Amino acid sequence: MARPLILVSNDDGITSRGILNLVNVMKELGEVIVVAPDGPQSGMGHAITVGDTLRLNESFIFEGVRAFECSGTPADCIKMARHFVLKDERQPDVVAIEGAIEGVPAIGFSLCDYSHKADFSHTAPFVKKITEQVLKKGLPKGVALNVNIPAKKNDNIKGIRVCRQANAKWVEEFDQRFDPYGRPYFWMTGNFVNFDKAEDNDEWAIANNYVSVVPCQFDLTAHQAIAQLNEDWEILR
Amino acid sequence: MARPLILVSNDDGITSRGILNLVNVMKELGEVIVVAPDGPQSGMGHAITVGDTLRLNESFIFEGVRAFECSGTPADCIKMARHFVLKDERQPDVVAIEGAIEGVPAIGFSLCDYSHKADFSHTAPFVKKITEQVLKKGLPKGVALNVNIPAKKNDNIKGIRVCRQANAKWVEEFDQRFDPYGRPYFWMTGNFVNFDKAEDNDEWAIANNYVSVVPCQFDLTAHQAIAQLNEDWEILR
Repeated sequence: MARPLILVSNDDGITSRGILNLVNVMKELGEVIVVAPDGPQSGMGHAITVGDTLRLNESFIFEGVRAFECSGTPADCIKMARHFVLKDERQPDVVAIEGAIEGVPAIGFSLCDYSHKADFSHTAPFVKKITEQVLKKGLPKGVALNVNIPAKKNDNIKGIRVCRQANAKWVEEFDQRFDPYGRPYFWMTGNFVNFDKAEDNDEWAIANNYVSVVPCQFDLTAHQAIAQLNEDWEILR
Repeated sequence: MARPLILVSNDDGITSRGILNLVNVMKELGEVIVVAPDGPQSGMGHAITVGDTLRLNESFIFEGVRAFECSGTPADCIKMARHFVLKDERQPDVVAIEGAIEGVPAIGFSLCDYSHKADFSHTAPFVKKITEQVLKKGLPKGVALNVNIPAKKNDNIKGIRVCRQANAKWVEEFDQRFDPYGRPYFWMTGNFVNFDKAEDNDEWAIANNYVSVVPCQFDLTAHQAIAQLNEDWEILR
């Protein structure tokens, strides 16, 4: 059997330390191709570039791995990888993403430590186990995995938990400053606030030193709301 | 009772024709505040700007309406509106968005005609009816509406349908060109392909000249996959 083909990307850019860690783990599991942004793309989620051009240049920073840097977002990278690097001839067996992309049939890995000196040394066994499991069992159609690994502490990680997304959100704050000409500009900051008191969600898992795995879907429909709107709304009749 | 407060934004930029149409309808329903991007932001979805500054400047292009142009994405506009324009003192009763934002507790209106000369003349009654209905009945917690209005044809629109999101996606194509120095660059193009043969989805509704209303949710969890992974995966034990 051919070795599995693993496409790797991220949202911090191709020169970040996180992607190097991910590439090294994936090399143990299969043939790796990297297409990653040429600079940080945090917060871009699954935004795509329209109305502007994209650049794709080969990169030689990973030993023994074909890699390309792309001027677009993480979602652009995946699209460019499939069409230009793989030429639509072979599909990756799994897409491994370091960062926060959701909505791609793929595994997104994030380390819950956003410092520049973040320690990735404890992550490799979990990244490897989860990827092996997906290569072996596949994923339900239309489902991607969002994996969060707790920051390294003295106590060992307790295990892996499949969770639902917590009812939590970013509560933004803005830092207003003034440029040398007296005009205001803003830096967005904020805190992630968890409103969820249950124990079956990702925030609980991470806070309790488990690796959280949330299966995510493309379908954004609030199916239970369809019946309610059909019943309540007068403008449908 | 105070008139409802309606926050309006879009993803085509504050000078687009679509937002002018939306502002004019909303002025009939309540007090309107506009915070919209200072240029086109298509494809940005609910991307947010981090690691870069934001500008917010008052705009006087809408008669009798407080309006601001913002250097960020549509999601940035909503956040800036709530914090800086409304100063977190009053929440909008409804957020009306011309374009494609999803995941905000809001109504997103899109006209299924992307030409520069698109005719919006038939859209006002539907935009008004749906917004009035939401102002009157509210929306289920965590649910936003994605409304698509068919392009203007000779036959009248048949009505409004609450639908689920179709199993459909963009199938990208890339147009590869070369700059004057011989280096490749790419334009992304593509087609929206519907794989869904049922009649309860938005693509069917639009193709059959109905206004489609899809209730969308924040929670991306594929709940049915949790049990399956818990059963199938060996690495959890």
